[in-house]
Amino acid sequence: MFGHILRNTRTHCYLALLVGGICTSAAAADAARFPDAAASDPAKLGWMVGAPPPADRILRFEDGSYFQFPAMRWSVSNFRQLMPTMNVSRGLSAPGALPYALRSDIDDVRFMPLNGKQAMTWRESLATNYTDGIVVLHKGRIVYERYFGVLKADGQHGAMSVTKSVVGTMGAMLVAEGRIDANKRVADYVPELAQSAFGNATIRQVLDMTTGLKFSEDYADPNAEVWAHAQAGNPLPKPKDYTGPRSYYEFLQTVQPQGQHGEAFGYKTVNTDVLGWVIARVTGRNVAELLSERIWRRLGAEQDAYFTVDSIGTPFAGGGLNAGLRDLARFGEMLRNNGRFNGQQIVPKSVVDDIRRGGDKEAFAKANYTLLPGWSYRNMWWVTHNEDGAYTARGVHGQTIYIDPKAEMVIVRFASNPIAGNAANDPTSLPAYHALAQHLLARPR
Amino acid sequence: MFGHILRNTRTHCYLALLVGGICTSAAAADAARFPDAAASDPAKLGWMVGAPPPADRILRFEDGSYFQFPAMRWSVSNFRQLMPTMNVSRGLSAPGALPYALRSDIDDVRFMPLNGKQAMTWRESLATNYTDGIVVLHKGRIVYERYFGVLKADGQHGAMSVTKSVVGTMGAMLVAEGRIDANKRVADYVPELAQSAFGNATIRQVLDMTTGLKFSEDYADPNAEVWAHAQAGNPLPKPKDYTGPRSYYEFLQTVQPQGQHGEAFGYKTVNTDVLGWVIARVTGRNVAELLSERIWRRLGAEQDAYFTVDSIGTPFAGGGLNAGLRDLARFGEMLRNNGRFNGQQIVPKSVVDDIRRGGDKEAFAKANYTLLPGWSYRNMWWVTHNEDGAYTARGVHGQTIYIDPKAEMVIVRFASNPIAGNAANDPTSLPAYHALAQHLLARPR
Repeated sequence: MFGHILRNTRTHCYLALLVGGICTSAAAADAARFPDAAASDPAKLGWMVGAPPPADRILRFEDGSYFQFPAMRWSVSNFRQLMPTMNVSRGLSAPGALPYALRSDIDDVRFMPLNGKQAMTWRESLATNYTDGIVVLHKGRIVYERYFGVLKADGQHGAMSVTKSVVGTMGAMLVAEGRIDANKRVADYVPELAQSAFGNATIRQVLDMTTGLKFSEDYADPNAEVWAHAQAGNPLPKPKDYTGPRSYYEFLQTVQPQGQHGEAFGYKTVNTDVLGWVIARVTGRNVAELLSERIWRRLGAEQDAYFTVDSIGTPFAGGGLNAGLRDLARFGEMLRNNGRFNGQQIVPKSVVDDIRRGGDKEAFAKANYTLLPGWSYRNMWWVTHNEDGAYTARGVHGQTIYIDPKAEMVIVRFASNPIAGNAANDPTSLPAYHALAQHLLARPR
Repeated sequence: MFGHILRNTRTHCYLALLVGGICTSAAAADAARFPDAAASDPAKLGWMVGAPPPADRILRFEDGSYFQFPAMRWSVSNFRQLMPTMNVSRGLSAPGALPYALRSDIDDVRFMPLNGKQAMTWRESLATNYTDGIVVLHKGRIVYERYFGVLKADGQHGAMSVTKSVVGTMGAMLVAEGRIDANKRVADYVPELAQSAFGNATIRQVLDMTTGLKFSEDYADPNAEVWAHAQAGNPLPKPKDYTGPRSYYEFLQTVQPQGQHGEAFGYKTVNTDVLGWVIARVTGRNVAELLSERIWRRLGAEQDAYFTVDSIGTPFAGGGLNAGLRDLARFGEMLRNNGRFNGQQIVPKSVVDDIRRGGDKEAFAKANYTLLPGWSYRNMWWVTHNEDGAYTARGVHGQTIYIDPKAEMVIVRFASNPIAGNAANDPTSLPAYHALAQHLLARPR
């Protein structure tokens, strides 16, 4: 099924694939081959516009055309039109306030890209990162907001692996409430996983991704487990000769151990899928239902969010959340406020404290993220341990929630960078975020 | 593909099929075979509940299990989880008010079913009709509201052919604005339809469904055009040996003439699909986008609505709308108020007047609806011409908007009657609506 892709392109993406289709992004080395943000603007290219759209502007889930660059710049804002989804209701009441205090000085904030030689402005970084939308909150007010391409304020965009941090937050909430014991083993909650690599891992190891798993994301290898994961979760009918797992849950039971649990950070999406399964067993709610009940309805969200689902209705906990940009900003601001927002305590302060303290730095260092020195990973959040105590949710192709407690700043960004690795975005994103934090600290209003 | 269905069941449904799958409802004569409302309650049966759900509670779009009764009682509230969809944004502001003035006397309103011998209460009629949700507005206030099964106030339910009246309203708006000339021919707006039966039909004939079309809805006939329409619009990948039309637009071009345009009412879904195409050409917006822009954002809707789509993103104008019950009530109340609602004129009063005047009664009579004597059809609304001047939107399996101007009453109902024909619902619905109207007229509050 994926053979022609492997032959024709160098694939280096991750969640792109996992949302159900075929991935044809390319390696960082290929960056220069891609049209820039203006040339790949999905609004200008007119995907799926017309009655009917021109033949070369039709995108289909089934053939993977929807996730080829630059078409994927349209698809990330339109997953719902391509595949089945499950709603995350905001409820029916009026949205909560998210006041404005727009500033005109942000576009000119300058920063030095990682490993770079020439400074760049904030404004320049947006196109460099193929930004689809970005909101900056300072002290709870919107100081900056931009939309590009086909994303509008009233649209939803794939959050990709930012989903993990949202699900990890819910997992940590259940731990804080005593409904999940982080020291128990996965098989205590999900007996079906007893024979898999997860069976004897603790919930804490899953939450911090220190499990030892044989789960390769090497797209050059047609036998890599990531292909099987994608095919199991794909909601389309399976080929007649298909004999593999037919849902996320079935796939997770096949994951084999590799190495020891608890020794090293290993960023593998299947941990979040397992956490989602544990959450479903403990609460009787899948992650979409629980997100609505515990968070989205209480945030004063202005839009419903949604999850992509597999063929038996399992929301993709590892990467399936789609949401409005400002609603994701509400989520980030809630955490910045120690879990309190919209007049109520939504997430226990102890959970936020736990995320901010971070995880095992030594375990993290073993994973060799050269652009993230001294960082750690906790409850499915990336913790910078920088001078501001910033922590962040990161999703492939540039999705971000970045919370800087000291600067009282939250940045939420949706993007469609042709390169799937965050290493492509980090050099012009992380220093930009930090520079903006310092700017807001130095020039409060 | 449909062979086993035709062999095993007597099919008598319509839009059930057209939303993309396989239809296995049964003929009216089979009513007694079906479990009643309580026994078929989808919440009690637990479809798609569990992590994973039990094997016999999993519903799949691809194999048609989702639309077998009683499973379809779950599916009508969860189409989004089964197939790709397009959002109808309500915008981001606070919902408009829909005040309450609940009355406890409605459940006991009595009426005589059509062709019946024994009176029935309003309360009894709800179960008889497999009601999923019902709201009654009187003078703009909610006097009655009930939800059953898996439908909640914050859910969306398939509106089925009620969609046609919504799309017909938009078509009539564009006529009133002079953007569509109702006397022009379809081919003047959509040249691709010139060689089809629609080519030389006028827009007025399409709006009032007096076109002469060879389009059979006889499910006992494997060559009936309705099967080809369903397969063309199905968003799933086509079988390898499939050579037919691959979208609604492609299918519409194949419809052949039968009889003369303008002579008789012939209720055929493809008319609304053609109207949707004309609307898209004239406005540059498909019906989902236009519904959001012109109506949903202005109504003060509390939820986004959505349309099912075909494989090239065409919203199913003939039956693909899904919406919240109270939002559909807002739509009905807007029309009752001559197009004015939420502080603004949303639909021109002349459009409402035109619907209320009705269509050609003689043309309607030729279609031989014995339960609807003296009715007519105008702008895709069914007009009763009764003493109250009531008009109604009707969808298969019991979907309804019923507007009684004299009684200042709007009824909106979602249902999942196992029998697809409205003839199964009408005997215990139409006299119930009229009895309630007389009750409210006699006992105003």
